[in-house]
Amino acid sequence: MALALPEPRWPERLSPLKVVDDLLRCGICFEYFNIAMIIPQCSHNYCSLCIRKFLSYKTQCPTCRVAVTEPELKNNRLLDDLVKSFNSARQQLFQLVLDSPPVSPPM
Amino acid sequence: MALALPEPRWPERLSPLKVVDDLLRCGICFEYFNIAMIIPQCSHNYCSLCIRKFLSYKTQCPTCRVAVTEPELKNNRLLDDLVKSFNSARQQLFQLVLDSPPVSPPM
Ligand SMILES: [Zn+2]
Ligand SMILES: [Zn+2]
Ligand SMILES: [Zn+2]
Ligand SMILES: [Zn+2]
Repeated sequence: MALALPEPRWPERLSPLKVVDDLLRCGICFEYFNIAMIIPQCSHNYCSLCIRKFLSYKTQCPTCRVAVTEPELKNNRLLDDLVKSFNSARQQLFQLVLDSPPVSPPM
Repeated sequence: MALALPEPRWPERLSPLKVVDDLLRCGICFEYFNIAMIIPQCSHNYCSLCIRKFLSYKTQCPTCRVAVTEPELKNNRLLDDLVKSFNSARQQLFQLVLDSPPVSPPM
């Protein structure tokens, strides 16, 4: 089972960052945003491909159901930059935690 | 001098997160976004108050100079959620670093 998980478990000491990680994921595919698009009328965000596929089937936001068409989608580039920086920081911090001696009591 | 700094120095072990921290700050006031607004035509973001003040003086994006008027600004609520979660995580991690023994060689 553990081997099937796409992401490593979060070390307890880094768990405060889990909330940030969750926010940087698309509500359709649950991966980090890949070319994040914002729906300006409701402020929800999805990967470009995920939301375009969804809108070809139903012209509404999958989360709040506000009416939306493809030309209304706008790039939310800061989210792409945040994904890149956060993912890199996460990997470096995971490595540091693995390399550092456990604190007692273990956390 | 040190006392005048509004933010504590980043512990070396947490420095990978500094890049994320920088991305969550407004380019006008350099504080974390406070009610983040996106300019849909260029994807730049600012605090609501900062960009409204700026636009009352000059109707363009302060970063890329694209023409923009106040009604075109849209909320970028995910940035507000990210600021809240990241700031809280940062404080918890700073505390953990202060509480944990230094790694040798010191990092
Ligand atoms: Zn997606
Ligand atoms: Zn929505
Ligand atoms: Zn500002
Ligand atoms: Zn701009």
